[in-house]
Amino acid sequence: MINVAILGFGTVGSGVAEVIYNNKALIADYMGEEVALKYVLDVHDFPDSIFADRVIHDFSIIEQDPEVDVVVETIGGARIALEFTRRALMAGKSVVTSNKELVATHGVELMKIAEEKQVSYLFEASVGGGIPVIRPMCQCLAANRIEEIYGILNGTTNYILTRMIRAGLSFEDALKEAQQKGYAEQDPTADIEGADACRKICILASLAVGRHIAPEYIPTEGITGITLQDVDFAKRAGMKIKLLGRMIRREDDKVCAYVAPHLVAEDAPLANVVDVFNAINVRGNAVGDVMFYGQGAGKMATASAVVADILDAAKRKQSRKRCFWTEGGADAVYSLSEVKSRWYVRASDLAEVPAGCTVLSKETDSTVAFLTEDALSEQELLAKLPQGLAQVHYRVLD
Amino acid sequence: MINVAILGFGTVGSGVAEVIYNNKALIADYMGEEVALKYVLDVHDFPDSIFADRVIHDFSIIEQDPEVDVVVETIGGARIALEFTRRALMAGKSVVTSNKELVATHGVELMKIAEEKQVSYLFEASVGGGIPVIRPMCQCLAANRIEEIYGILNGTTNYILTRMIRAGLSFEDALKEAQQKGYAEQDPTADIEGADACRKICILASLAVGRHIAPEYIPTEGITGITLQDVDFAKRAGMKIKLLGRMIRREDDKVCAYVAPHLVAEDAPLANVVDVFNAINVRGNAVGDVMFYGQGAGKMATASAVVADILDAAKRKQSRKRCFWTEGGADAVYSLSEVKSRWYVRASDLAEVPAGCTVLSKETDSTVAFLTEDALSEQELLAKLPQGLAQVHYRVLD
Repeated sequence: MINVAILGFGTVGSGVAEVIYNNKALIADYMGEEVALKYVLDVHDFPDSIFADRVIHDFSIIEQDPEVDVVVETIGGARIALEFTRRALMAGKSVVTSNKELVATHGVELMKIAEEKQVSYLFEASVGGGIPVIRPMCQCLAANRIEEIYGILNGTTNYILTRMIRAGLSFEDALKEAQQKGYAEQDPTADIEGADACRKICILASLAVGRHIAPEYIPTEGITGITLQDVDFAKRAGMKIKLLGRMIRREDDKVCAYVAPHLVAEDAPLANVVDVFNAINVRGNAVGDVMFYGQGAGKMATASAVVADILDAAKRKQSRKRCFWTEGGADAVYSLSEVKSRWYVRASDLAEVPAGCTVLSKETDSTVAFLTEDALSEQELLAKLPQGLAQVHYRVLD
Repeated sequence: MINVAILGFGTVGSGVAEVIYNNKALIADYMGEEVALKYVLDVHDFPDSIFADRVIHDFSIIEQDPEVDVVVETIGGARIALEFTRRALMAGKSVVTSNKELVATHGVELMKIAEEKQVSYLFEASVGGGIPVIRPMCQCLAANRIEEIYGILNGTTNYILTRMIRAGLSFEDALKEAQQKGYAEQDPTADIEGADACRKICILASLAVGRHIAPEYIPTEGITGITLQDVDFAKRAGMKIKLLGRMIRREDDKVCAYVAPHLVAEDAPLANVVDVFNAINVRGNAVGDVMFYGQGAGKMATASAVVADILDAAKRKQSRKRCFWTEGGADAVYSLSEVKSRWYVRASDLAEVPAGCTVLSKETDSTVAFLTEDALSEQELLAKLPQGLAQVHYRVLD
């Protein structure tokens, strides 16, 4: 019997309880023993829940119960979640989480404690919801040097962009619709400004190189500057605008990671990832490109990944080398200013489009838009333009 | 030190040697010990290879060498490969393979021996080349009931269809081009008639339900009947023709698996999987749909998956429950005749298109083509048509 305690009975936490309950028989068959939910820790009671009899309010009960094997942290944030995760690991319990903020900011410390205590700290659900990506990267691509990762890491912004592209909604209207459908929070800042995607590419980049590529080293631009004009100009170029998280590893193993809108060729697999779906492309030196696709969020999809981690943690009570990461720092990264690409530019009052560019706008358009033909650094691009005239400039993913 | 022996130094076998050699340092770092190639068994010598000093011709040397931990079987076929795999497992060595034919036909026996001997028999590379799909299905989706799988499982036929769709080549010309590029064998039968895809969906279906869904229970139709007319008619319907392997699990856990051309909506992710790429969509009852995409073949991509299995096998010298399968049989399957879908039909001399169909052909076309609006079994479809007039009929993937 494997006993589980869930911390935080919100969307994901209650989904985890449901997956354990609904798929009890197949899980027992897979594990060779039963997996049971022993405690649910929350500030609220849930008198109408079938799990009501397991609700407790005092974390120390879990901490001190030697029968608890795996603790699920679905509280979110990096305050109380951090404290409880520390204490659970210190008490010799494996911890499984979907909390990308905590992993991105305090992962190094928590992995160290887990290693010392010979338990697991697993977080498959922190990137891509239910999409298997962290374990495949660590295990299936273990024989590869991971050289580049890029992907649509945030379902909310992908939904908004899809509605702008397909239905011609403005950014504001698409956001409003996403909120009505429950795909965006009332305060959508973390999604639309790119912070959520930043945490995810932080986790993927850190996994790829084995050192912490902290959010503060990851330049992040969201989608609030994208207009329907940009969507149209992109279409004329045979492309779609997508918000990507990306990491590039240099020969010397330094990494550049960033989040920004990109123009993607419309027949590329990534361009056809729509609505709240996510897709993550990983390039290894042996395998080439592989892509993982699916629902990047959602109660049951995310819970599926959490439960897979519970089973994995329960199977390996003994320590093993974890393909995770150690401290990072400035010496682990290189600057985005060194990354060259073709660019899309929308500008006002531009008397003349610079040489070596493909014009996308027509005489009748109120602004000028063009693509550069050569790959340039951002500085090289801006040097070509009269100061202050570029309203937006986005990279092309080639 | 982990010692590896490779049986069969062809494309994949030599790729495995190269990955072990080229990525030696990162593999040692991941494993905490070195992985070394001790023997290469082949009928030929390879005097110009950097691995020439490891080439041997007598399998019993490997069989009797207690230092060999993992044997890589990249011989292919189900004769000598079967014998050597049996003997290696009996000798207490884990075996890793890319040999889909052997796994699809003799997997049950070999997994049993592996279990008895407390070693591993792993075959990630047998489906989707370098794409991680078997391990993610077994581990990351362990908390799910797998309800449906469909995918583009054969790169050769996908290349041919892509060239028919994009360049307007006839089937014959596209096949010739694929052969010139090395994407198709001189005898392309196993690819174009669907046998290769059949073995792969056999493996995926067996994994999903834990019982052997043998090739003889998998109705298989290839792409030789597809014409440029079909490609055009599909386009008029906003679809593309793709060869899919598919398995559907019923409530009672019986499975229907088959291989056949399908019409796929052109904005579906699968429709944009082109050239030699593969993509496999797996539906779990918790996670929903997830898709795995990448190069389905190729020396280094396939070798990447083999080496990942080597590392996995070496890590777990102790037995663990393997999420593989036991004997199957007629009671594990149900008939394709029960599976309903919309249909595409191309017919000659048809005086009248049946009611409830969308006509795709024009007056000027030499044949008639239409889509049924309702989902029908094959028998229900054929009952609507004058006998013998349907030249081809393909399912629509909805």
